[in-house]
Amino acid sequence: MILDYVGRRARLATALEGVDALLVTNPLNVRYLTGLDSSNAAVLVRADGSATLVTDSRYIEMTKGMDLEVIEDGDVAGRLAAAGVGIEAGHMTVAAYNRLVEGLIPTQGLVEGLRMVKDEQEIDLLRTACAISDQAFAEISVQIKAGMSEREVARVLEARMVELGADKPAFDTIVASGENGAIPHHSPTERELRAGDLVTIDFGARYQGYHADMTRTLVLGPPADWQREIYDLVAAAQRAGREALAPDAEARDIDTAARSMIAEAGYGDFFRHGLGHGVGLEIHEEPFLGPSRNGRLKDRVPITVEPGVYLPGRGGVRIEDTLVTRVGGPELLTMTTKELLVL
Amino acid sequence: MILDYVGRRARLATALEGVDALLVTNPLNVRYLTGLDSSNAAVLVRADGSATLVTDSRYIEMTKGMDLEVIEDGDVAGRLAAAGVGIEAGHMTVAAYNRLVEGLIPTQGLVEGLRMVKDEQEIDLLRTACAISDQAFAEISVQIKAGMSEREVARVLEARMVELGADKPAFDTIVASGENGAIPHHSPTERELRAGDLVTIDFGARYQGYHADMTRTLVLGPPADWQREIYDLVAAAQRAGREALAPDAEARDIDTAARSMIAEAGYGDFFRHGLGHGVGLEIHEEPFLGPSRNGRLKDRVPITVEPGVYLPGRGGVRIEDTLVTRVGGPELLTMTTKELLVL
Repeated sequence: MILDYVGRRARLATALEGVDALLVTNPLNVRYLTGLDSSNAAVLVRADGSATLVTDSRYIEMTKGMDLEVIEDGDVAGRLAAAGVGIEAGHMTVAAYNRLVEGLIPTQGLVEGLRMVKDEQEIDLLRTACAISDQAFAEISVQIKAGMSEREVARVLEARMVELGADKPAFDTIVASGENGAIPHHSPTERELRAGDLVTIDFGARYQGYHADMTRTLVLGPPADWQREIYDLVAAAQRAGREALAPDAEARDIDTAARSMIAEAGYGDFFRHGLGHGVGLEIHEEPFLGPSRNGRLKDRVPITVEPGVYLPGRGGVRIEDTLVTRVGGPELLTMTTKELLVL
Repeated sequence: MILDYVGRRARLATALEGVDALLVTNPLNVRYLTGLDSSNAAVLVRADGSATLVTDSRYIEMTKGMDLEVIEDGDVAGRLAAAGVGIEAGHMTVAAYNRLVEGLIPTQGLVEGLRMVKDEQEIDLLRTACAISDQAFAEISVQIKAGMSEREVARVLEARMVELGADKPAFDTIVASGENGAIPHHSPTERELRAGDLVTIDFGARYQGYHADMTRTLVLGPPADWQREIYDLVAAAQRAGREALAPDAEARDIDTAARSMIAEAGYGDFFRHGLGHGVGLEIHEEPFLGPSRNGRLKDRVPITVEPGVYLPGRGGVRIEDTLVTRVGGPELLTMTTKELLVL
């Protein structure tokens, strides 16, 4: 898909302040501004909107037909660095900075700020990424049964997403069963699922570079009372978080909408991560939702809402959707039911 | 697998120069020194070998039983930063550096230097990663035929590696057919393989965090004279590179052993990337082999040898093995034949 790279660079040029040009070295920002997907590239965007891209011989063939100046050089940042030029301080390392010319000016978040609000083409790609995730989950979830290992569940789910057209999994799938469910970022093990387990599955497809993110928690056999209690609580908190999403909402107020419900039920100590994060070319990107996050959302911001309750030694529940902020109410991209699935 | 984290930290403590302690923020270096696989963790290693690990609530359960002090805090670097402490300048961003206390001392490559030489447990993990790669390739390569897309070849190869026990693919598999073979780092497309194509497949398994890397080039149907010529040339250059691997060899001399053969045959302009790179917890790590790379290898350094010839508009050949430097000659970890496979 040919995206509006010229328009993106023009918007960046308008956002430059106090610098003659921005030296963009974050590979995802280079991709966002030029379309080049490379591990070694940099682009200089000037205040007049003109730009120069540098990459090495491995990637130079991919730049054919691009509508900007292209130079082949392995030292991509060094070729473009000059006094008065802004650098991406949140990406460039101290070592790279010290190696380059003096007079570079640290800047932060200029391209990330542009990337936060998506255009409709980007949202289409995210919608496809989420549809692939939903479809794979629908096919795989009914096959899950006692005796399968966490690793096996992750493997078949990831393979099915790629068969359905994903570039790859958006991130390493989490399958956390039984007591492992108390670890929010558990890596799948050879542990076999057992009757009575809660099983949290956090996964998503990447499609043309755009990342879906979804979590569902299942139960193997009839849920125990404590399992039903925390499931219903997390589901209610997740709904409250979703309903708080609005183009002008404060990031921390959205977090509070979900977190206060969990705290009032007495489980506040068992939900200690942020409520959600933006998704796009990265699986975690601006904006972030958490108790100490500032700033307001905007229109057309894809974002996750993912509260959880994690009980050490027993298990956990997390429920997560990817949505897009819209005037009039958020658009839900991950469509899988949030009713407790009893297998 | 429980690795010798205490010994690794003791060796790092011995290597500290001009700093009281090193603040390790590179996640792979944290993993190397503690065993914790986390996207948000830092470890401070002091000159006496003692250490403090900081990570956030998502990962704190994983630190149970670790033989060092552990603190839960989301601001992992901020919690440990102090004047006189060394930072990893090749990893820490300018923004993070400017946010922390004054008096931090940039250092480079201290942990990477330790990681370059592997212990036998690490080499065992790499041997398994390479064996999985060999096995998957043996099963999949015979199924490749005209009409399959590049994406489909990549998909079945990656799925088979994970079925065989890989954590995941070591990197995004490259399948470059026909004229796409002229792009060394081509991403697989929907292009269907055709009779007469050279097909370059660059892939590997990751096993318990350790990365295999292998490339083979196949031909669909009897090779044309030009295809046979560049294949035989690359194979001979690759052999020369492998034979030049020795614990005390200069990095650039190894590169020259292979590159000069390609240059003498008149194809020097069509091989413009480095000859190889170390592998381990990263797919690309120290040491690197190239015309301008300095430094000598050591014993027990896993490394790739991967020359190629890329003819724009026509196609390319690359042949790559993962080996380990040993006194008496390198150990080959990727065992797949390097005879031209005609399908």
